[in-house]
Amino acid sequence: MAESRATSRLSAILSHLPFVSAAPSAIEVAVAELQAAFPAEQLSLDVKTLKRFGQSWGSFSPPAPAAIVVHAESTADVVKVVNIAVKHRITLIPVAGKTSLEGQFLPPSCCNPPSADTRLPSGKLNEEEQTVATRPTIQLSLARMDKIIAVHAQDGQAVVQPGVGWQSLNEELAELGHKLFFPIDPAPGAQFGGMVGVGGSGTNAVGYGTMRAEWIQGMEVVLMNGEVINTRGKGRSRKSSTGWDTGRLFLGSEGTLGIITSLTVRLAPLIPLKAALTSFPSVASAVSAVVEIIGAGLSPTSLELLDGTSIRGMNLAELLPYKLEEEPTVMMRFSSPLEEVVNVALDKVKEIVAKNGGRPLRVARDDKESTKIWGARKAQYWSQQLLIGEGCRTLLTDICVPISRLAEFVERSELDVAQSGLLAPIVAHIGDGNVHRAILYKLKEGEVEAPPEVAKLASKLSKLAIELEGTCAGEHGIGTTKRKYLREELGAGTLNLMRRIKAELDPLGLLNPGKVIYETLEEEEESKT
Amino acid sequence: MAESRATSRLSAILSHLPFVSAAPSAIEVAVAELQAAFPAEQLSLDVKTLKRFGQSWGSFSPPAPAAIVVHAESTADVVKVVNIAVKHRITLIPVAGKTSLEGQFLPPSCCNPPSADTRLPSGKLNEEEQTVATRPTIQLSLARMDKIIAVHAQDGQAVVQPGVGWQSLNEELAELGHKLFFPIDPAPGAQFGGMVGVGGSGTNAVGYGTMRAEWIQGMEVVLMNGEVINTRGKGRSRKSSTGWDTGRLFLGSEGTLGIITSLTVRLAPLIPLKAALTSFPSVASAVSAVVEIIGAGLSPTSLELLDGTSIRGMNLAELLPYKLEEEPTVMMRFSSPLEEVVNVALDKVKEIVAKNGGRPLRVARDDKESTKIWGARKAQYWSQQLLIGEGCRTLLTDICVPISRLAEFVERSELDVAQSGLLAPIVAHIGDGNVHRAILYKLKEGEVEAPPEVAKLASKLSKLAIELEGTCAGEHGIGTTKRKYLREELGAGTLNLMRRIKAELDPLGLLNPGKVIYETLEEEEESKT
Repeated sequence: MAESRATSRLSAILSHLPFVSAAPSAIEVAVAELQAAFPAEQLSLDVKTLKRFGQSWGSFSPPAPAAIVVHAESTADVVKVVNIAVKHRITLIPVAGKTSLEGQFLPPSCCNPPSADTRLPSGKLNEEEQTVATRPTIQLSLARMDKIIAVHAQDGQAVVQPGVGWQSLNEELAELGHKLFFPIDPAPGAQFGGMVGVGGSGTNAVGYGTMRAEWIQGMEVVLMNGEVINTRGKGRSRKSSTGWDTGRLFLGSEGTLGIITSLTVRLAPLIPLKAALTSFPSVASAVSAVVEIIGAGLSPTSLELLDGTSIRGMNLAELLPYKLEEEPTVMMRFSSPLEEVVNVALDKVKEIVAKNGGRPLRVARDDKESTKIWGARKAQYWSQQLLIGEGCRTLLTDICVPISRLAEFVERSELDVAQSGLLAPIVAHIGDGNVHRAILYKLKEGEVEAPPEVAKLASKLSKLAIELEGTCAGEHGIGTTKRKYLREELGAGTLNLMRRIKAELDPLGLLNPGKVIYETLEEEEESKT
Repeated sequence: MAESRATSRLSAILSHLPFVSAAPSAIEVAVAELQAAFPAEQLSLDVKTLKRFGQSWGSFSPPAPAAIVVHAESTADVVKVVNIAVKHRITLIPVAGKTSLEGQFLPPSCCNPPSADTRLPSGKLNEEEQTVATRPTIQLSLARMDKIIAVHAQDGQAVVQPGVGWQSLNEELAELGHKLFFPIDPAPGAQFGGMVGVGGSGTNAVGYGTMRAEWIQGMEVVLMNGEVINTRGKGRSRKSSTGWDTGRLFLGSEGTLGIITSLTVRLAPLIPLKAALTSFPSVASAVSAVVEIIGAGLSPTSLELLDGTSIRGMNLAELLPYKLEEEPTVMMRFSSPLEEVVNVALDKVKEIVAKNGGRPLRVARDDKESTKIWGARKAQYWSQQLLIGEGCRTLLTDICVPISRLAEFVERSELDVAQSGLLAPIVAHIGDGNVHRAILYKLKEGEVEAPPEVAKLASKLSKLAIELEGTCAGEHGIGTTKRKYLREELGAGTLNLMRRIKAELDPLGLLNPGKVIYETLEEEEESKT
């Protein structure tokens, strides 16, 4: 009964999608095999779900629906899906928290090269039924694999499934009474599968590093040959020097090399954080203060920069009970189990701030105010919409440069922003040199495409970052939107090595194809034109 | 003139080595091509040098000489050597500081499987002319590539060649007046090429992580196809999320996947360290105190354990001006730019120590005493020789377990040690769970092989570590001596993935073959018997 309903839903989907005429049989057979292998509640074939999984957070493109979403509940489920995908040569895309920004988990367009950047707004929002034509695809959701398998409190470790979010892990640890937490804080809702996939970070990277540090110790991974490996085997010691760590291949692989089904993560002691903030006459003086704070070994956890425009948005949204000066502002956090320690460090910070022309440091009086300040920082993304009012859309850029080049980046990109006529407020993980300019825009009445200045400005920022010895992707990964910069940034040799590894791990090119690197050199060549 | 001398020296070597009759032509031609391509001062063909490069630090086996050592002075030199080795199918082994312990840079034995563990003492020390028969091999020394190419002080980065040592980098930084240092402190004399190759650590891993953290940001690598890549391209931003980081493949690869010719390393602010020490009634109570110190977020830099036997050696050597109690002793370091901060943390440590039954904490009164204490810790390795007197030899083991299993490891291995009749004092990076037992022994008059109990005890320790969810190699790598444990520890799937990556990067199997993983599955199988 459930099956026949599913089958008729499938037909509806299939008739809806343009690929049917191209190669209906393989995907139809694969879907039928999935239906035989899984109970109906583990499969989604309805248009609504397929569309939801076909659209990225913050994307304004029409959805790119897969043929089916499978909700895995175990490693065995993942193996089954891999085997069916390989057998029928169907594109397979793992997905966890769906918070990625660069099109990481979207089914590929049916045509090569993709007719348009899948993330940049095409503005066809209002035609609700419209979708982008996609290649027949199975999306494999790991979000139901959301168990915390073990907490090894003495060892500062947890073993989690890929659908566990960093926030839910931290909530669970608190509930269990452990004074431990996972300190990397990317987007709210991000889950470990995707966090490993993208290899990003958040506001705590100054103190704790990124996902690429030693937070992920072992991973169970399903390979495209159906093998289940554990990159550290049975081991979970804090250190290991047993050859090259194959787990590192999957960090930042954006689901293109294997499917992560469990992870051993390291935890940090949960200690109080104290927030403070101040503002400076210029970005250059803010950078100078930050370099001194880091260089003095004062061990801040977070060092964030917001420019005057960002602060204006925060003031408009009344994110804090007081108004801030609309000038380059540094928000910072220090942590220690001992309040005296933080206070001594903050005294030194006050001196450094004064020396660099900053206003007097405003230090949170208590935990509540610290939380309030950091909450305001995290809500800044939303507040900036008030800067241009209703209908505001955002393209969030993500470059990173050596901190010695950061002031130059901001200054030179200011000219690009001015030239574009757009607003692009800055929120930066300044301690890491990671600058997000949020390009704000609206669609004019009757227009379906974002103004061309938006994509043009984003491209200028990426290229400027590479020119300044930086990267086009500080923490959001590559997906489909940044592939075009990789040859310039990493060089042909490194790109070629990535391609060789991809071919070795996924010889049929079925696993999240076209993410991070183009599927073929021809496609890359054509994308330039 | 120089050439003819070199050629006659070559003939002398060749006549000396047992491989000549097997396949003289390929190596002879390769050596001749190297002589044509390099000035004589970049080539070593003399028996003394070949023997020196054919023996590992702490190894008592007869030397395993290569046919030639090439001293590279540039990336172009490395490319030339790679191309000649590939053209003539000659085994090629990169080597830097020669401080590795597991046979990492030794030429492979001419026979497969190797007749004996290359590191375990065969005791044939006194027959000076005797060597182990080796496969025709080029050793490529990177030790002359010892330039610090750039220091980016504001960014906390240096660009170094692989022959730069961590100590010489730190000395140079101090001379240049930078308040920065590279915090990972493996063996004295270790150079960056090998440090990346082994992926180890040292006494500072509690505070700074290991070589596998984010200390190595980009690497220039020569691949076996002669390509020179830079794993981060032109970028040197602190963070990057541009796909999987190919540089991670070379970390821990022990020179088997590519040859590193320059590295961008991250530096830490140089801040004062304060040392303290105390002892406990048992290893279990020491572990309990250490877990509490870490869990409280007191951010120690180092947490080291020495057992009563190790302390006895230190006392005998008078490494400190006072005698220490011969019981499990924890030596620790805390760092901060602000002395008050360290003092506040140490007050808390004193409480934790007392609570766990430790003796009153002895805190260094000044920098000089801190340096003295840490110097004693570092000299401990030598002092233990006094425990059994002249002729003492050491097999240094290197297991790592989750800290929650450390007391159990020590307790159970104590029984193995007792059973062996040997002395095996402990020095452990206790904060990481990394335990070195130094197995001490002597050769009896007329004996040429180490007592069989030595190898037997080492093997028991490795197996016990794996049983306790640990690893056979905490920081010294695998080389040839630990390969036999990898299948049990990492599992067949992970080992197979390593093998596939090796085959992709070095399809001819010429680059440091048989290190980390066996050259063939057959060889692995035979090694069991």
